[in-house]
Amino acid sequence: MEYDEMQNFIERRGIFFPSAEIHKPLAGFWDFGPYGANIRRKIIELWRKEIVRRTDGMEIEGCVIMPKQTFIASGHLKSFVDPIVQCTKCHKIYRADKLIEDVLKMHIPEALPEKRFDEIIKENNIRCPSCKGTLANVKKFNMMIGVSIGPLQKETNAYLRPETCQSIFTSFMKIYKTNRKPLPLAIAQVGRSFRNEISPRQMLVRLREITQLELEVFFNPKNARVKWYRDVKDYKLRLQLKGKEVEEISVDKAINDGIVSNELVACYLAIVQQFFEKCGFSVEDMRFRELDKDERAFYALETWDFELKTNVGWLELVACNYRGDYDLSSHSKVSGQDLSIIENNEKFIPHVFEVSMGLDRIFYCVIERAACTRNGKPVLKLPPYLAPLDAVILPLVRKDGIDELAFRVYENLKKHFDVKYDEKDSIGKRYLLYDEIGVPFAITIDYDSLKNMDVTIRDRDTTKQRRVKISKLREELEKAIHQ
Amino acid sequence: MEYDEMQNFIERRGIFFPSAEIHKPLAGFWDFGPYGANIRRKIIELWRKEIVRRTDGMEIEGCVIMPKQTFIASGHLKSFVDPIVQCTKCHKIYRADKLIEDVLKMHIPEALPEKRFDEIIKENNIRCPSCKGTLANVKKFNMMIGVSIGPLQKETNAYLRPETCQSIFTSFMKIYKTNRKPLPLAIAQVGRSFRNEISPRQMLVRLREITQLELEVFFNPKNARVKWYRDVKDYKLRLQLKGKEVEEISVDKAINDGIVSNELVACYLAIVQQFFEKCGFSVEDMRFRELDKDERAFYALETWDFELKTNVGWLELVACNYRGDYDLSSHSKVSGQDLSIIENNEKFIPHVFEVSMGLDRIFYCVIERAACTRNGKPVLKLPPYLAPLDAVILPLVRKDGIDELAFRVYENLKKHFDVKYDEKDSIGKRYLLYDEIGVPFAITIDYDSLKNMDVTIRDRDTTKQRRVKISKLREELEKAIHQ
Repeated sequence: MEYDEMQNFIERRGIFFPSAEIHKPLAGFWDFGPYGANIRRKIIELWRKEIVRRTDGMEIEGCVIMPKQTFIASGHLKSFVDPIVQCTKCHKIYRADKLIEDVLKMHIPEALPEKRFDEIIKENNIRCPSCKGTLANVKKFNMMIGVSIGPLQKETNAYLRPETCQSIFTSFMKIYKTNRKPLPLAIAQVGRSFRNEISPRQMLVRLREITQLELEVFFNPKNARVKWYRDVKDYKLRLQLKGKEVEEISVDKAINDGIVSNELVACYLAIVQQFFEKCGFSVEDMRFRELDKDERAFYALETWDFELKTNVGWLELVACNYRGDYDLSSHSKVSGQDLSIIENNEKFIPHVFEVSMGLDRIFYCVIERAACTRNGKPVLKLPPYLAPLDAVILPLVRKDGIDELAFRVYENLKKHFDVKYDEKDSIGKRYLLYDEIGVPFAITIDYDSLKNMDVTIRDRDTTKQRRVKISKLREELEKAIHQ
Repeated sequence: MEYDEMQNFIERRGIFFPSAEIHKPLAGFWDFGPYGANIRRKIIELWRKEIVRRTDGMEIEGCVIMPKQTFIASGHLKSFVDPIVQCTKCHKIYRADKLIEDVLKMHIPEALPEKRFDEIIKENNIRCPSCKGTLANVKKFNMMIGVSIGPLQKETNAYLRPETCQSIFTSFMKIYKTNRKPLPLAIAQVGRSFRNEISPRQMLVRLREITQLELEVFFNPKNARVKWYRDVKDYKLRLQLKGKEVEEISVDKAINDGIVSNELVACYLAIVQQFFEKCGFSVEDMRFRELDKDERAFYALETWDFELKTNVGWLELVACNYRGDYDLSSHSKVSGQDLSIIENNEKFIPHVFEVSMGLDRIFYCVIERAACTRNGKPVLKLPPYLAPLDAVILPLVRKDGIDELAFRVYENLKKHFDVKYDEKDSIGKRYLLYDEIGVPFAITIDYDSLKNMDVTIRDRDTTKQRRVKISKLREELEKAIHQ
């Protein structure tokens, strides 16, 4: 689906919309309506099953607000910055690297020193795109959102987390000690994070309030292996090595040829790619892009950005970072707590491999990819386990007891499924409406239903209908969703 | 379980712990370890099924940060205040109403004017409990946590939501227009809310960062009925009318005698009480306390606080508020948007009945209630659908292929259940460890398993074991959890 069409569909069906839309909304904040919220929840469930559970992980739930010291330790207070530049005439503010990129059509690393940005702007005589005014000097802007906690507290003593991983690091030792699991230990968290982005854009692509799905794997660098290696060893990864085209390389080969640091890294890349296959994407549109040293976060020893081809270009959906012992070492140093463990009589600080996903972009791409048309009418071909509803229950007409029977069918199904009852408009119109939002099965109650106590199940993708006894409906639906 | 014992258990098993514990944690913030997070997730699932879906509701997902105008409209910027008082000598800060209550042993409404608090303090010569110093004048302290969004933004232009319901109100019209559902329309949301509480206390009882489960039912006051009335009409509510003892009153009687405003209110009270029965509480420990006018929020026409008897006294777990048209009217007025709808040719602003729950307190009470001992050993008798794990898989010994078979059993089950593999320590010790955190089924692989390809399933509550074929295990477990 093209970007404009998508915007129209999203708006028309209330999939998501600007947060507090009626009250001068702030840019970069979106609320999700029932269909959107359901699809998101199902993506989270899939992640839980296919990434967390599959790799024997555990999930925690940490706070959004964390004390200042956490972010001194993590380095965010110093390094979570973007370069900004303001017009001296109209006072508009831009992200310096993006502004230069737009003008010069070339990649500019955001981590350049301020001076270098100023030089590039001067050398190329770059001016305010809006009023052509002169640009002031570039400054580094910290995107952390500070808060003051406690009565009469005036100074900022805490921050909204900019990523969900920090509470995984701060609670690692507690979890390791209380959960009877050896390394490698995968600890996951899903939740909101906050970034005071300079220019939020493209609906869900750059937000100020995001939902992250993060997994941090703690391991012994001398034994970077996983128990489920056999499951994925022959799986072909879509790797784009530095300066090269995408290649299909098996997990085994990636390990043996030293393309990745170790077995654990390669196996997790496979898990990520397989997750996106299950989200409905084809491997041809995927790549793991190997990041160069100057593109990586300063703590990362190795980074693979998982990217997907979309209507707004290649989009980064997952950052896979080998973070070494940076996190536990820094938190240990600043807190004064020993965060090392002992395994086989050896004391060491565990290393971390991170799989950090943004739910908002995944959600956006899942919808974009599923959207298609049939006879000029929109159909959202989501995998049934990612659909906003499992089924919709439709009485053919609103009379002769058909609506009552339909409502009874609905009442029984709602105990087990995400279903909806809808009796408005013609049956044909209703089919189209629920095709558009991707409901995989439409259950119709008609005159024959009254006689035979059965219904028709219409398949969204084939539009074929089959009759099923009401007494068998639950079982049939269960099978159809998870087939 | 007594409060101290509970604290010890929670700490020892990592159920929850102070957020960012290693870094000078702030009071009123807690992180949940894997067991805690799982139990919470299952409570949310139960709420979704038994309250949202059962009443034909829809769930949305809104932002944590909302623009200032939202809270001008909602009244929070003016009214979300607690009375505080500071010692002039040691500068400690107290919540005035709680301090007076502690000294005078009587209930003090928090909404009294500042002057009245000052008078009571003077009349009773109340001094600083810590240093006996003189107390300054009482002030109203706003508990909203402000943030500044946008580059170079200095002033507070947004707030962390103090409750999840406001985005339900701001998005009501969008959802009503895009979701093809007539009134009554129940819109739900689960998520984090933030309150700069003066004195967080008693672990999860008073927090600064909370998780709420909220449901707002929009309805036509001239037709305050629900389609599922028959399901609950004879159900006995535990109502404590103003100044009276608790009585059991059927939904029908509560409606007919005018004890509640209308059918919709009575039916939702029944749904709430039944939800808590499913959480494992007995009705004898429940009550809906009718609030007097001076105890109710200023916008509420009728309020029933659902309370539960716990080890820290009666605890409010749910606020059931009939909010009239206050919310949509205020948001309409401040935003300039028309939030009225037309039904049967009549234009009106929908009324709202609210069922607002705090997950943290429910979670706390669920654990407290489930805790008991058997032969001096702790057992957490959670309903299986609220347990932190569905089952644990235990090889009798770590040799002779028993551990390998056990791991294979685990690998198969983890596709469908929350399960864990544990091979450390004696089998008896492991049973006790998993009894303590409430795992309902322990699956043991022993020498007979190698011959017969079967396992034993041990029931947490009876400690009885039965042998089940590995090929039947999934089915058996499914049945046992949902029986």
